[in-house]
Amino acid sequence: MSVLLEFSMFPTDRGESVSGYVARLVEIVHASGLPYKLGAMGTTLEGQAPEVFEVVQKCLADLQRDTRRVTAFIKLDWRAGRTAGLTGKVASVTKRISHPVET
Amino acid sequence: MSVLLEFSMFPTDRGESVSGYVARLVEIVHASGLPYKLGAMGTTLEGQAPEVFEVVQKCLADLQRDTRRVTAFIKLDWRAGRTAGLTGKVASVTKRISHPVET
Amino acid sequence: MSVLLEFSMFPTDRGESVSGYVARLVEIVHASGLPYKLGAMGTTLEGQAPEVFEVVQKCLADLQRDTRRVTAFIKLDWRAGRTAGLTGKVASVTKRISHPVET
Amino acid sequence: MSVLLEFSMFPTDRGESVSGYVARLVEIVHASGLPYKLGAMGTTLEGQAPEVFEVVQKCLADLQRDTRRVTAFIKLDWRAGRTAGLTGKVASVTKRISHPVET
Repeated sequence: MSVLLEFSMFPTDRGESVSGYVARLVEIVHASGLPYKLGAMGTTLEGQAPEVFEVVQKCLADLQRDTRRVTAFIKLDWRAGRTAGLTGKVASVTKRISHPVET
Repeated sequence: MSVLLEFSMFPTDRGESVSGYVARLVEIVHASGLPYKLGAMGTTLEGQAPEVFEVVQKCLADLQRDTRRVTAFIKLDWRAGRTAGLTGKVASVTKRISHPVET
Repeated sequence: MSVLLEFSMFPTDRGESVSGYVARLVEIVHASGLPYKLGAMGTTLEGQAPEVFEVVQKCLADLQRDTRRVTAFIKLDWRAGRTAGLTGKVASVTKRISHPVET
Repeated sequence: MSVLLEFSMFPTDRGESVSGYVARLVEIVHASGLPYKLGAMGTTLEGQAPEVFEVVQKCLADLQRDTRRVTAFIKLDWRAGRTAGLTGKVASVTKRISHPVET
């Protein structure tokens, strides 16, 4: 039963720019082999619950190596029988709108 | 001082499919004229704080017309001097990664 | 139509301890006169939507005076006809449980 | 390395009242033996990352038995060397404020 999980995670003791840390986490996400999508405010994964939470925990462990405080925000959406939600959810909204939508 | 605001909002008393309601909210976002991006787990806006919070409140008011319970989750990111964060944040991460990244 | 709004907001460019900044925000919340509750992971307010979002925007403006990057996470819950949700929601759960619950 | 994890989780296909489902999840949290605190907008746990994520996954699995769509919001806060954050974080804010604070 696959879920969609969006998360943003970053150290809060490393100054205002955290893109280097986020890039490390995107590498971990990419290496998981799960479908994902990087956005301005978070990365969305699709997979079985244990798979996606394992990725989140690997990301946390990675930041714990060289930072002292980490914040994360996670959203989860499970729907029975859903497949390909990463693309399907957006499509189910945009098909109801008559003009182009930024996606 | 513009901010990035990502939000997801939907009624929780209308059954498992809410894409019709989300489409109404995307129309409100689109009509605001602010830069935005629709994703599988939320919509990200860029604008002055009063502008983006006004959009969120219009969306809430819209759902309050014909539903009885609404949930929303909002993430906000402000950085001094940032412009075009909607595209710039993703670019600042992907330029650090040597392989293609799903965006 | 009152809503419950939980938020956590803090600067991410000021090092690992942010309790001084959070205390400033709690002062703003307190001064609003709205019912609220401070917790380990966020502060929950109850009020009309324009009231609670005004508090959030005042908090952001306060941090923008002397920091360079601010993150916030906001959860919103509206239910038609609800009053005193700040205490009532917890009570509606705990009354269903036969043992003491930490609240 | 313990973390604080706040989460709210509920089915979105079961109508406007979900307190019965939330009560089931509080039972799972309680049975974990981890320190926790139930609030109006979420439950906060303290424990090792694998422990707290296991609780979240148990809660999801529980709802998947008899609902068709589940939403969850999770906030995570890790700080090196912190102990008893569930009570300590609030105390570190309130000690800076000269008047009583609602907690």
